[in-house]
Amino acid sequence: MSRPVPFVHPITVRYLEVDRQGVVFNMWYLAYLDDAMTAFLCEGGMPYGEMLAAGYDVQVVHTELDWHGPLGLGDPVGVRVAVAHVGRKSFTLRFRVESSARVAAEASTVYVAVRTDGSGTCELPPTLLGALGPPA
Amino acid sequence: MSRPVPFVHPITVRYLEVDRQGVVFNMWYLAYLDDAMTAFLCEGGMPYGEMLAAGYDVQVVHTELDWHGPLGLGDPVGVRVAVAHVGRKSFTLRFRVESSARVAAEASTVYVAVRTDGSGTCELPPTLLGALGPPA
Amino acid sequence: MSRPVPFVHPITVRYLEVDRQGVVFNMWYLAYLDDAMTAFLCEGGMPYGEMLAAGYDVQVVHTELDWHGPLGLGDPVGVRVAVAHVGRKSFTLRFRVESSARVAAEASTVYVAVRTDGSGTCELPPTLLGALGPPA
Amino acid sequence: MSRPVPFVHPITVRYLEVDRQGVVFNMWYLAYLDDAMTAFLCEGGMPYGEMLAAGYDVQVVHTELDWHGPLGLGDPVGVRVAVAHVGRKSFTLRFRVESSARVAAEASTVYVAVRTDGSGTCELPPTLLGALGPPA
Repeated sequence: MSRPVPFVHPITVRYLEVDRQGVVFNMWYLAYLDDAMTAFLCEGGMPYGEMLAAGYDVQVVHTELDWHGPLGLGDPVGVRVAVAHVGRKSFTLRFRVESSARVAAEASTVYVAVRTDGSGTCELPPTLLGALGPPA
Repeated sequence: MSRPVPFVHPITVRYLEVDRQGVVFNMWYLAYLDDAMTAFLCEGGMPYGEMLAAGYDVQVVHTELDWHGPLGLGDPVGVRVAVAHVGRKSFTLRFRVESSARVAAEASTVYVAVRTDGSGTCELPPTLLGALGPPA
Repeated sequence: MSRPVPFVHPITVRYLEVDRQGVVFNMWYLAYLDDAMTAFLCEGGMPYGEMLAAGYDVQVVHTELDWHGPLGLGDPVGVRVAVAHVGRKSFTLRFRVESSARVAAEASTVYVAVRTDGSGTCELPPTLLGALGPPA
Repeated sequence: MSRPVPFVHPITVRYLEVDRQGVVFNMWYLAYLDDAMTAFLCEGGMPYGEMLAAGYDVQVVHTELDWHGPLGLGDPVGVRVAVAHVGRKSFTLRFRVESSARVAAEASTVYVAVRTDGSGTCELPPTLLGALGPPA
């Protein structure tokens, strides 16, 4: 796997994501995490389109976020991603949203694998396990 | 058809829709128009789910917007909808985004009917024509 | 305080909030919680505009969400809000996103009070304490 | 000015921007145009932060969009930007949203310059004129 360690996904803050307080509204952090998760799996060898084509998808079942400081327009932002846990039917990613050397937010998200035919959750397929790699 | 004339769809401005300038960011007006279009057709007797179930959908092919003034948090907002044109395969709605007696924006959008089986555009079905009613 | 107990804030799912999987994308739940928090305080006697005019605001510092099931277009949605904890400089709200009798998601969010002059966090002002009411 | 001609701003479609029909929802095109406009001015020598620091900002007063085809997840997207008109207090940009060799949408937007002190519209300042360059 050619994915760099640590893996940091760059984000460009959009003008529209910044609210009246002059900072990125909390909701958009979940967009950033989703972008980062997708990039993390892709760089691990599992592009999202291939996962769907193979008949499964991932769904978020739990997430927790801690905000330590604001993000503003023009701030350089990166989302650091690491594997916290890999189970039989779920996995957990840990995120750190950074701006320069500062940690703006930390998050942890639990995903389950589901079949795209609507039959519900399933065991993590080998290709997904490969793209995740071992927990950090 | 029990839809009132004029038809005005109420909108509540979300905190996150307001940008650093303290006004609703331009993108969200397209969300307001979509909300208003859906409500307009529903009140005309064509709920969106029934339209899909009947095998067709609508797609935006053209829209133009003029902004005359800002919308802020807490402003009472209504979107006035009227039918501007009904063709064989498309129709045009005219929108007026109002706050109290003030016009914040005007817009005009052209929609085409498409089949949900992917076969492309189609003639406006009778139920949709009924829900639109005659042009104002 | 005239706020009903339990307090349930109604949400209308927007077409654009529904993703390729046919369900509301996770990010929008934070919009729903923000809407519900604002309505909860307003119904408790503290409209958001008055809070700002009084020189303070609230900021999210922690949130956790558990998704139990999907929300789709046209689903009737309500967000139940209750006070879980009131501290000196922060308070915690508990949310339950419901569709009919089904719980789609549960969440818990910690807010701090900040002064709008940029001087940082402050003690919860009496009007905010009044609008929160006692923990459930 | 080192800005390439033609100027094309790359966009990565977000998962959440794709709707039930499997295509980018119309609203997000306005986000793409805003991203592209900001990048266009920045590459022309006028970063957004410097414009604000100099005491003025731009506001959209008119936009029109034509959709020719869909954008989906994973599609390579670029927004081509050109100056269509420069007036005394306003300017017009023309956009072409492209995916590979295909044109997904075309748009034209009129912006006015405003002072950040709330005193309203103003003549386009020399630095902004410089960043725009001559109409194509």
